[in-house]
Amino acid sequence: MSSLTRVCFVLCLSLSVCVSGFADDGYELWLSYRPLADATVVKRYKAALQTLVTEYESPTLTLATHEITRATAGLLKTSLVRAKTPAQGSLLLGTPRQSPLIASLNLASLATLGDEGFVIVNTTVKGKPCIVIAANTDVGMLYGTFHFIRLLQTQQSIQNLSVAQAPVIQRRILNHWDNLDRTVERGYAGFSLWDWHKLPDYIDPRYHAYARANASIGINGTVLTNVNANAQILTEPYLRKVKALADVFRPYGLKVYLTARFSAPVEIGGLSTADPLDPAVKAWWKKKIDEIYTYVPDFGGFCVKANSEGQPGPQNYNRSHADGANLFAEMLAPHGGIVMWRAFVYSNETPDDRAKQAYTEFKPLDGKFNSNALVQVKNGAIDFQPREPFHPLFGAMPKTPLMLEFQLTQEYLGFATHLVYLAPLFKETLDADTYAKGKGSQVSKVVDGSLDHHTVSAMAGVANIGNDRNWCGHPFGQANWYAYGRLAWNHALTAEAIADEWIRMTFSNDPSVITPVKAMMLSSREIAVQYMTPLGLHHIMGYNHHYGPGPWIRDKPRADWTSVYYHQADSLGVGFDRTKTGSDALSQYAQPVQDLYGPLANCPEKYLLWFHHLPWDHKLKSGKSLWDEICFAYYHGADSARWMQQQWNLTEHKVDDEQFQHVKSLLAIQHQEAVWWRNACVVYFQTFSRQPIPAGLEKPDHTLPYYEGLEFPFAPGIRPKW
Amino acid sequence: MSSLTRVCFVLCLSLSVCVSGFADDGYELWLSYRPLADATVVKRYKAALQTLVTEYESPTLTLATHEITRATAGLLKTSLVRAKTPAQGSLLLGTPRQSPLIASLNLASLATLGDEGFVIVNTTVKGKPCIVIAANTDVGMLYGTFHFIRLLQTQQSIQNLSVAQAPVIQRRILNHWDNLDRTVERGYAGFSLWDWHKLPDYIDPRYHAYARANASIGINGTVLTNVNANAQILTEPYLRKVKALADVFRPYGLKVYLTARFSAPVEIGGLSTADPLDPAVKAWWKKKIDEIYTYVPDFGGFCVKANSEGQPGPQNYNRSHADGANLFAEMLAPHGGIVMWRAFVYSNETPDDRAKQAYTEFKPLDGKFNSNALVQVKNGAIDFQPREPFHPLFGAMPKTPLMLEFQLTQEYLGFATHLVYLAPLFKETLDADTYAKGKGSQVSKVVDGSLDHHTVSAMAGVANIGNDRNWCGHPFGQANWYAYGRLAWNHALTAEAIADEWIRMTFSNDPSVITPVKAMMLSSREIAVQYMTPLGLHHIMGYNHHYGPGPWIRDKPRADWTSVYYHQADSLGVGFDRTKTGSDALSQYAQPVQDLYGPLANCPEKYLLWFHHLPWDHKLKSGKSLWDEICFAYYHGADSARWMQQQWNLTEHKVDDEQFQHVKSLLAIQHQEAVWWRNACVVYFQTFSRQPIPAGLEKPDHTLPYYEGLEFPFAPGIRPKW
Repeated sequence: MSSLTRVCFVLCLSLSVCVSGFADDGYELWLSYRPLADATVVKRYKAALQTLVTEYESPTLTLATHEITRATAGLLKTSLVRAKTPAQGSLLLGTPRQSPLIASLNLASLATLGDEGFVIVNTTVKGKPCIVIAANTDVGMLYGTFHFIRLLQTQQSIQNLSVAQAPVIQRRILNHWDNLDRTVERGYAGFSLWDWHKLPDYIDPRYHAYARANASIGINGTVLTNVNANAQILTEPYLRKVKALADVFRPYGLKVYLTARFSAPVEIGGLSTADPLDPAVKAWWKKKIDEIYTYVPDFGGFCVKANSEGQPGPQNYNRSHADGANLFAEMLAPHGGIVMWRAFVYSNETPDDRAKQAYTEFKPLDGKFNSNALVQVKNGAIDFQPREPFHPLFGAMPKTPLMLEFQLTQEYLGFATHLVYLAPLFKETLDADTYAKGKGSQVSKVVDGSLDHHTVSAMAGVANIGNDRNWCGHPFGQANWYAYGRLAWNHALTAEAIADEWIRMTFSNDPSVITPVKAMMLSSREIAVQYMTPLGLHHIMGYNHHYGPGPWIRDKPRADWTSVYYHQADSLGVGFDRTKTGSDALSQYAQPVQDLYGPLANCPEKYLLWFHHLPWDHKLKSGKSLWDEICFAYYHGADSARWMQQQWNLTEHKVDDEQFQHVKSLLAIQHQEAVWWRNACVVYFQTFSRQPIPAGLEKPDHTLPYYEGLEFPFAPGIRPKW
Repeated sequence: MSSLTRVCFVLCLSLSVCVSGFADDGYELWLSYRPLADATVVKRYKAALQTLVTEYESPTLTLATHEITRATAGLLKTSLVRAKTPAQGSLLLGTPRQSPLIASLNLASLATLGDEGFVIVNTTVKGKPCIVIAANTDVGMLYGTFHFIRLLQTQQSIQNLSVAQAPVIQRRILNHWDNLDRTVERGYAGFSLWDWHKLPDYIDPRYHAYARANASIGINGTVLTNVNANAQILTEPYLRKVKALADVFRPYGLKVYLTARFSAPVEIGGLSTADPLDPAVKAWWKKKIDEIYTYVPDFGGFCVKANSEGQPGPQNYNRSHADGANLFAEMLAPHGGIVMWRAFVYSNETPDDRAKQAYTEFKPLDGKFNSNALVQVKNGAIDFQPREPFHPLFGAMPKTPLMLEFQLTQEYLGFATHLVYLAPLFKETLDADTYAKGKGSQVSKVVDGSLDHHTVSAMAGVANIGNDRNWCGHPFGQANWYAYGRLAWNHALTAEAIADEWIRMTFSNDPSVITPVKAMMLSSREIAVQYMTPLGLHHIMGYNHHYGPGPWIRDKPRADWTSVYYHQADSLGVGFDRTKTGSDALSQYAQPVQDLYGPLANCPEKYLLWFHHLPWDHKLKSGKSLWDEICFAYYHGADSARWMQQQWNLTEHKVDDEQFQHVKSLLAIQHQEAVWWRNACVVYFQTFSRQPIPAGLEKPDHTLPYYEGLEFPFAPGIRPKW
């Protein structure tokens, strides 16, 4: 780097706030590298970081050195000298295979860290004090580099470092529900990042930025296309486009996956059947998969939604889900690919309880899936509701590696205008104890493979990313992308710890920012549950678009696409009885879980109406009646949305002004919509309870017909007709 | 401004190139204000610009002073002192009504410059040398400010200035074909800027940037919605959203217009008819329009597409286009609004020649439109083809103010991957002589109202703007937005002069950049005509999506939606006979125009096959046969696309690297697609000519079935089914 360039780097630092053109529009995510404010810390860091030592060249090493250069220029307003040998205060990057200096350190801990783990240690190299970031592969080293930068961003000590990390989940994957016309099903952050029309010849710089962001949090896979799949993605012109993306992503350790339309052999292959046991079908898929690997040698595999919500699948040919999954697994195995077979299925006939169906269909298939076929299970049995008990399949299929699918895009949690930090939701599922092998059989252990000793593990997050400048629509949506990646890497992290580092990296290390923002984030999911679906209520949102409240939804093509099916409100009471007196869905859980949720005295109130139908005057622990408690929850939720506004206002002039104004506007929308949810739900349920809203609570603005009459024909993220 | 902030401004300048995060991604358009390189010029400017003098406050004046501050900080690395009285080297902004200093100058020229004109003069104020930017309104002053900044950006002298300008067209309007679901019909730059879901509560900073860009080139109106209209935009929730945008745009002088769905009284009004003469319908529209003005007091009016391509209109009720237009005109008139009634109509029955229909339908209505009803006429009679003769309606309706509609979005000119500078196309139409009142009756004089002494004038450009970071998809697409605005302001400007200023403002004042880039721009439209539709060929693109060549298109629901209808190729020859021996469309023009295009000896070869069906061996001026000339044109066009790549490569390291790489990628795509057009068209027409491709020209890669078989199910900009 020339000295002029170095000067430029230094100059860049104080600029981001001074001209509106340079305001923080959120594009840089948690990697904006604003200058650190603590001069003592900066001084210490600068002393330790004078020289950047590398001994070889590779695309991924170049990414790591660029990142260090960018981070130190931003955070410390300094520029490291590049060298091949350590000096005073050096940072040494590499793998023992390629770096003789690192090889000479004989870092024993690397032996157990696999392809993606890393070590960061303070040590002496050739007599000089050195911080070493080492790994068995360059990608591991890149992960270590981002970890080290995170230490700087959050003002941690970089003395006496002895970090050794490896991910607990092997495949940490984003699922993009992106259609080939660039609409995004349940997308609220604009449209698809993938500009298919201009690919493969135009490479948007944003593809690099996307891969970089994922690498910074350890995400190593991306399913580019919607699970409601289009076979066109498997045609030669599109595979050339997929290859272009895979080539961009590869140095960042990010593998490409696709969704496979089960009927592709018919739709683009000219066959008359897609029967998974038909030899011609098998031959077609083998050829197609081999072709994919000629374009993308490290192709990750397929995610498949089959026999679900109208998607074709093996049951169209009287074959089982295992037959379908194994068709792909068999052809992918020689290439090292996997198939992720979604368990989100429910019968076209109205079932007694939709919550039971995935278990009913899949549990009998345990042991019938090939070793590289994973079953991808949503966190709960219905569909990404604000709160659901963990899915009963977790723990129920010990012979099958189960993936956990979270939804980062806020389909049921206020789209991109509600601040809802999802890490507490993720943790609630991960920490839930299935009791499959007795106490301590948490969902996390099922998913990471440790409970049942699986050799393959994966996690999926439905992306909340679009072409909005700030990626996620809501600035705080970025925290959900971040938290998902961090938890897929290490599910033992707490929601609080992740919020803390994200706030520091994104906004400020100033405690007067961290304290209110963290309080707001950690409460936000519970607040949303309160103003949307308190006490175990679920699936009472607007029809089809899922925007806003719709507890009155009835008379749709399927009973289980209505709200009345789920809340079961009548003049006597409310709630879905899933105990033995009802659908008995509870019996799908291990006995200790049944004992917890079944007896009314034990059942946590957060799951009350999920498992029980109760009279309006049922007394709760608070001493209040169920009706009153529902009202108070809705009102408390809406009031808390106002409290969030107050918390955020404390950060004015302490965070970037553009970001501040953006969040402020969205919190105002959130509060309006929380009041809307509250009013609509309370006046609706009141038609059954026939009881007054408790004294002291303000009356809703409108009567029920007003709320029922609201229409949103162009709400974003509606599934297109395809 | 604090001195610290001032230092920051200065620091910002040299940074745009030093860190990739600050690379020019095109967001700043022609207003990026990179530092000027000529030190002599900078020194001179700085001497003249030391103090910024204003004497009052207004929202628009604030915009102007911010703009001056931003421009001088960027271009000159300097910061003006704010003052209320002149000092050495002052810039004085304002209107005589609000500024006593300006009033004292008695600027006589202002009297003739209307609400939008401005003067810029060097003079002495209170004994100090001063540059004065004055206007009768703040918006005029803002236009003057942008003009002055343009002088700086392009390194013009700012001594002895005596500028007095006013726009030649009153309403200079962008038409956005944006749907309420944010898809954009014929949009190739991402999706709609208007985030309807989050409006009115979240104001994207981009709305300000959009209005600012338009103000900088004098565009003063924007039709927010697609001409294929949805009545929902007229409902109360959407009018609240429209108001929010109008409030943002107002200080920039930008008025909001909407499209009116003719059947809205039925669709959202609950009426049983939309008959424009029905009293209930009239009452409904009156009430609706009055309601709109309560939200947007300066609402501009409606653009209406009626009885065209399936849109409802007055003919559904056996009423005329004038009846329909006057319905709106009558209700809008009290508020000062206008209706822009599109003449792009063609019968649902297949006509003898679609080119004739607008004239046939509209000419008899001349004199029947209310005074605030304008008829909006596309530049040519078919549909925004790469080249069309001017529309025969120009000059044919002297009693009606005719608008000119250009298409900036490149529906037929390579989408957003082809560099086609459209100013030469715009000028070709504007400069065309209709001979309506004898020689010198140019289209420009029809449109600006001077030929027929109209008191209202307007121009429309179908926007090429989307939510792509750089607004237009192709960096050079910005030049078409820019050129449209500049020509609507002053149609006497040359395409060359506009290119020159745009290049300087966008890329560099370096002649070694300007020369090759300008050469490329000025040739680019002719090059596209050559590789797409040489010698007057037209409408031979792909079906529906209009992507790529499709001369073989036949057997569609309407003959005039096919290609064979337009090229009429057979074993004897090719071309559409529009003379007396054919459709006689030529007779719609004035006699001197007929004399020019009718006789083969006179007809310019660029319009040859537009007006004539000629044998394959017809001899052209070059001495070549028609077949050979067609081949040479296609090959020359494709070769010229390669020449454009070479021209651009000359700018490497002289323009921003991200911009350079982006354009380079797109020029490669353009060349590939030019070859595709060439090959597909030549092998197709060869099936009729049965003659070889001339010696020396390389053979196409594929045979006709290959080109015919290409499918693009997800080409961007396809009209959604609504």
